[in-house]
Amino acid sequence: MGMIGGGLNAFIGAVHRVAAAMDGQIELVCGCFSSHPEISFSSGRSLFLPREKVYTSYQEMIRKESKLPPGERMDFVSIVTPNHVHYDPAMMALDHGFHVVVDKPFTLTVAEAVDIRAKVEQTGLVLALTHTYSGYPAVKHARRMVTDGHLGRIRKVYVEYPQGWLTQKVEDAGNIQAAWRTDPKRSGVAGCMGDIGTHAHHLAEYVTGLKTTEVCAELKTYVPGRLLDDDGAALLRFENGATGVLMASQVAAGEENALKIRVYGEKGGLEWAQQEPNSLVVKWLDKPMEIYRTGTGFMNAPAAANTRTPGGHPEGYLEAFANIYRNFAKTVMARIDGAEPRAEWLDFPGVEEGVRGMQFIHAVVRSGTQDGIKWMKLQE
Amino acid sequence: MGMIGGGLNAFIGAVHRVAAAMDGQIELVCGCFSSHPEISFSSGRSLFLPREKVYTSYQEMIRKESKLPPGERMDFVSIVTPNHVHYDPAMMALDHGFHVVVDKPFTLTVAEAVDIRAKVEQTGLVLALTHTYSGYPAVKHARRMVTDGHLGRIRKVYVEYPQGWLTQKVEDAGNIQAAWRTDPKRSGVAGCMGDIGTHAHHLAEYVTGLKTTEVCAELKTYVPGRLLDDDGAALLRFENGATGVLMASQVAAGEENALKIRVYGEKGGLEWAQQEPNSLVVKWLDKPMEIYRTGTGFMNAPAAANTRTPGGHPEGYLEAFANIYRNFAKTVMARIDGAEPRAEWLDFPGVEEGVRGMQFIHAVVRSGTQDGIKWMKLQE
Amino acid sequence: MGMIGGGLNAFIGAVHRVAAAMDGQIELVCGCFSSHPEISFSSGRSLFLPREKVYTSYQEMIRKESKLPPGERMDFVSIVTPNHVHYDPAMMALDHGFHVVVDKPFTLTVAEAVDIRAKVEQTGLVLALTHTYSGYPAVKHARRMVTDGHLGRIRKVYVEYPQGWLTQKVEDAGNIQAAWRTDPKRSGVAGCMGDIGTHAHHLAEYVTGLKTTEVCAELKTYVPGRLLDDDGAALLRFENGATGVLMASQVAAGEENALKIRVYGEKGGLEWAQQEPNSLVVKWLDKPMEIYRTGTGFMNAPAAANTRTPGGHPEGYLEAFANIYRNFAKTVMARIDGAEPRAEWLDFPGVEEGVRGMQFIHAVVRSGTQDGIKWMKLQE
Amino acid sequence: MGMIGGGLNAFIGAVHRVAAAMDGQIELVCGCFSSHPEISFSSGRSLFLPREKVYTSYQEMIRKESKLPPGERMDFVSIVTPNHVHYDPAMMALDHGFHVVVDKPFTLTVAEAVDIRAKVEQTGLVLALTHTYSGYPAVKHARRMVTDGHLGRIRKVYVEYPQGWLTQKVEDAGNIQAAWRTDPKRSGVAGCMGDIGTHAHHLAEYVTGLKTTEVCAELKTYVPGRLLDDDGAALLRFENGATGVLMASQVAAGEENALKIRVYGEKGGLEWAQQEPNSLVVKWLDKPMEIYRTGTGFMNAPAAANTRTPGGHPEGYLEAFANIYRNFAKTVMARIDGAEPRAEWLDFPGVEEGVRGMQFIHAVVRSGTQDGIKWMKLQE
Repeated sequence: MGMIGGGLNAFIGAVHRVAAAMDGQIELVCGCFSSHPEISFSSGRSLFLPREKVYTSYQEMIRKESKLPPGERMDFVSIVTPNHVHYDPAMMALDHGFHVVVDKPFTLTVAEAVDIRAKVEQTGLVLALTHTYSGYPAVKHARRMVTDGHLGRIRKVYVEYPQGWLTQKVEDAGNIQAAWRTDPKRSGVAGCMGDIGTHAHHLAEYVTGLKTTEVCAELKTYVPGRLLDDDGAALLRFENGATGVLMASQVAAGEENALKIRVYGEKGGLEWAQQEPNSLVVKWLDKPMEIYRTGTGFMNAPAAANTRTPGGHPEGYLEAFANIYRNFAKTVMARIDGAEPRAEWLDFPGVEEGVRGMQFIHAVVRSGTQDGIKWMKLQE
Repeated sequence: MGMIGGGLNAFIGAVHRVAAAMDGQIELVCGCFSSHPEISFSSGRSLFLPREKVYTSYQEMIRKESKLPPGERMDFVSIVTPNHVHYDPAMMALDHGFHVVVDKPFTLTVAEAVDIRAKVEQTGLVLALTHTYSGYPAVKHARRMVTDGHLGRIRKVYVEYPQGWLTQKVEDAGNIQAAWRTDPKRSGVAGCMGDIGTHAHHLAEYVTGLKTTEVCAELKTYVPGRLLDDDGAALLRFENGATGVLMASQVAAGEENALKIRVYGEKGGLEWAQQEPNSLVVKWLDKPMEIYRTGTGFMNAPAAANTRTPGGHPEGYLEAFANIYRNFAKTVMARIDGAEPRAEWLDFPGVEEGVRGMQFIHAVVRSGTQDGIKWMKLQE
Repeated sequence: MGMIGGGLNAFIGAVHRVAAAMDGQIELVCGCFSSHPEISFSSGRSLFLPREKVYTSYQEMIRKESKLPPGERMDFVSIVTPNHVHYDPAMMALDHGFHVVVDKPFTLTVAEAVDIRAKVEQTGLVLALTHTYSGYPAVKHARRMVTDGHLGRIRKVYVEYPQGWLTQKVEDAGNIQAAWRTDPKRSGVAGCMGDIGTHAHHLAEYVTGLKTTEVCAELKTYVPGRLLDDDGAALLRFENGATGVLMASQVAAGEENALKIRVYGEKGGLEWAQQEPNSLVVKWLDKPMEIYRTGTGFMNAPAAANTRTPGGHPEGYLEAFANIYRNFAKTVMARIDGAEPRAEWLDFPGVEEGVRGMQFIHAVVRSGTQDGIKWMKLQE
Repeated sequence: MGMIGGGLNAFIGAVHRVAAAMDGQIELVCGCFSSHPEISFSSGRSLFLPREKVYTSYQEMIRKESKLPPGERMDFVSIVTPNHVHYDPAMMALDHGFHVVVDKPFTLTVAEAVDIRAKVEQTGLVLALTHTYSGYPAVKHARRMVTDGHLGRIRKVYVEYPQGWLTQKVEDAGNIQAAWRTDPKRSGVAGCMGDIGTHAHHLAEYVTGLKTTEVCAELKTYVPGRLLDDDGAALLRFENGATGVLMASQVAAGEENALKIRVYGEKGGLEWAQQEPNSLVVKWLDKPMEIYRTGTGFMNAPAAANTRTPGGHPEGYLEAFANIYRNFAKTVMARIDGAEPRAEWLDFPGVEEGVRGMQFIHAVVRSGTQDGIKWMKLQE
């Protein structure tokens, strides 16, 4: 693995590295951790990389690595930069034959997303998008329960994602994470809805196996002077006639990272909350409520395949993240070996989810910033 | 107290009686429990009422009781019939000088609600509307925290009310509660939104002390053949610029009565869930999360004034209901004695909340049943 | 009902009155609320009793009431005084033909308890002991699950009762409840173990249907100068070979009233916590954990028979208390009518549980206050 | 790192490897994964080790590695075998100059533990004992709160560890983990108390900073034919006069791994449950209950130093385990560099905790298997 971005003080870069390292299957072999050479080199040094495998531009890294023999060069590139530096390195990596992991949201525009999708289809390379929360075993259990029909036809989806860390104008107080996320040039047309709304949207589609068709939204910017939405909510319509509500806020003062989903069908409902991720509550119309717990013998195959420890030994965010890397890596290794990846390895978000996410962002912004026509289709 | 409705098999009538009896201050002295004489008489007998105090029409009851001397007649009437039998008995009772308790939703139309409000103002009598959930001590603590400014300016309200009991067409299977709630003639223009959406709406306004100004809604009828909405959601706008989301469903399979509210201001947020009503979670921007527990020494005055047992001795739905009756009764007794009721006794929902509820229902139905103009004002 | 004790500032007297009144089946007709005449009279007045039905000694009340004709006199007496005033009024009431409700712990000594048992057996009168917590529907569900064998043979019982209200020497600061509970003359040989340890012990025997045979305990007095234990724990042995642990503390600073029980058999375990009393968690060896919720259709017959509201409308402490009164009253009414009470009405703690509680207290004190022979039999 | 034990199907070996790899600071360089050569070699191959770094006896590995130059040999050895193969390899590794990580419980006897302690003191090498649960950030927060005196003088400790996986005789059904844990030759004098009782005991001493002085226990073997205890409980006495209760069971049917601790002092109490490890509940005598959450800004320094992700991104068992490895590795690296390790790096269980654990096991077995003298001192 080669990394683009993720210099020493970047939060998400370190998460990607721990996730990639967890199972001993992926090795960081090179990186361009920053456009500032000194940061890139010091980052590489602390990661035990030889100096010649540390680059100061991603273009140089992709070019040079592509000329190395297979056993020496990186097998894939992981792009962990802000949104505006996703499209170019992803396209260049694909053009040079590298598989790609890219952080979310996918791109700045729907057009960029569609472009990358075409490139992936054309090259046959593998692309993973790190919608972390679909990596949790209990979420995979939920998806399989729904798609196997245990809840009956789905009618209702509630998905919510309250955070409080942007309650005040921390982007003016040196918070780097806040600075780029609230900057339209680096973040795109949406703030909160791009950063976390897309996670919620992806989770809703992942768990239900249903596509959202239309949204009716209200976006708000509560902190004076902020340039992008820091709060929003959307009514949702799904392809099968189900409806839903999506709530995302980064000014929900006091909340940490409280992503939660509830799905109701004709026979029962389920509920999963990211902050206690090892429990899946299932409520039935005709029998008592059940709680399915990660690691126990009662989890279905997709959950079990993505679990490392037995019941009662809680898994967390890093393990969920590592599941995306592990499934991606197994798929890549199969491809490298010329083999067909197993279906269970393909269980990670990819380019299609990237396109859907951008469509969601743009529909929600169009609906949420005016009072006229409210229902907006994701695919125009 | 005289009761209209609430014959032996009616759920809510028994709740009203327990709530009224709980503190030993209110005595049931007469009733017209059903329009079927035999049901009314057998109900009265099982309630230890003498036969002459059991009536077979509310008109007869109001007329006859109004002619009795003060010590012998009922002091107030409690109307626990379906929605379509609220307006007439309430108006007649007020016209004959009786105070009134009426179940929610208030009436069938905004016009009826406005009419009763005028009558209450004109007569100076007391009217209570049993929005039970505002009777919980922890809710009263929450309201006072918000109105005292502890959370700072309010930005966001999430209120939700999922139930599952109408997931199937139980109105065709002999469920009397379901039958009238899904019948437009008895329930009014809304089903789910009238029955429980109004509870959620009232709770949002009660806790925040803010009025909703506009709604943008989607109503659904999921069960084939049902005539009224059994599910819905609304984006909300409040008078101070805050926004909110209200979700109500009676087809959330597996849910019991999961009313919950979250309110976020600039300094923190709070969360209360009716099914575990003795805990109020408060999350702060600048200090660890706190949990306030009913009955402990850390509750504020409005909470303490509405609590019967010490911390750790859980209070429930009936106690919340009884708080409305107790505060109403103290207010009525003060009025009968010619005294001014204490401010704390006036803490029960009344005619103003009834009018607001009807405005909410009608705005939500106008918005939620079409795709054109979506934002509807509560007060046109 | 006539009441002995329970003057205006007494906590438990008010609880008894609310519990008795809740279902409209029991009427308070007389009382000796205090040995101070002025307190007794003012209490009676506020409870709307005519002055001639308020007494200033329980002896006078029992004597005079016993001479009234059946329709005018009290049917039973409720004794809500401190422990040292249980035996005499209970014996006298029984001797005069009155049924009895008495608060726990039953008496001061095992001998007194055995005495009352003999009197009850001889007179055929009904006696209820208010071990409130066995009145909760979810506890009744648990008991029936266990006794029906759903958990298999029982192996392990954990029962705990931490409170924090005696963490400091509040008996010196005017806390009346604390004053008598920490006074050996009024409380008996045990403090914490008598006040709440007996509740925990009763709950363990009630839920499992098993008798404890031996205890191995450690009692402590943490607050300097206090004369009775304020904390303790006991290892338990049950008649079927199961073992258990009982923990009770009144110096668990910050705790409210956190009674909790867990029972494990060969097939699964269950868990119930009084502070969230409407949920019963059942964990299985061979299927996912379930949660049974009071008021839903999944509760068994004893639970349903003791429930007033549907699922999601939480019941609390007062409803549990009222269940004891209701079942007692139905039993008494059957006896008065010369009929056989239904088995379900007999589901309340009585004189046998009173004797067991006193045996438990005395065994725990014998074991817990010395380091020599530790295992003490309940029945010597 | 070189590993002894942990062949492909061993649960805890894989956990050690993930934990060691997590932060990119520790590399597995050699191993003797099994005494079966084919298992050892295939394990090594799947871990990407060259064949010459895979050994078939730990003696060979220690001898050969000790002769390699510093840059090429392992820096420390990690012993993840059953209990009976702890003492010999640990002593030999120390004798050959290697630092040691060893799984718990430490040894078979107190004498062995004391021996290793002497060796560690004599060699100046570093030894870590993987009492995982003290690695959680919230546990470290708890310890610092207690030792800083925030709860006041400690009075009461409840620590419990119910598991259900040995409810049936799974050792006869091919469960390898169960087989050696229930075999006195491989496990030592205790089963449940050695396997998990020691975890609970260590947690109690770690959080409180207090030593237990005496135990009064009851051990049980519920599954017929099993040779060691599968359940037990102990009353505890601490050096400062505090008392406690320790419960451990492996026949608590339906439980996963429900380690939980509660500690009460004169000012408040705290509560931590391993299955939801990112929350620490703190209950106060004089203010509302608080919840401290891992990763938030409200955690103290020891917690923050052992946290990888921000609030709301849950950490789990593997991260806790990795904290022991990380702190150990930093300490070892400092020693290798001839520097003094920082105090915060020394925060991992070591040889002293190993000796205490063995003393606990032996005292509990002496007390718990007879009915005579019950209070047994840990240090005779």
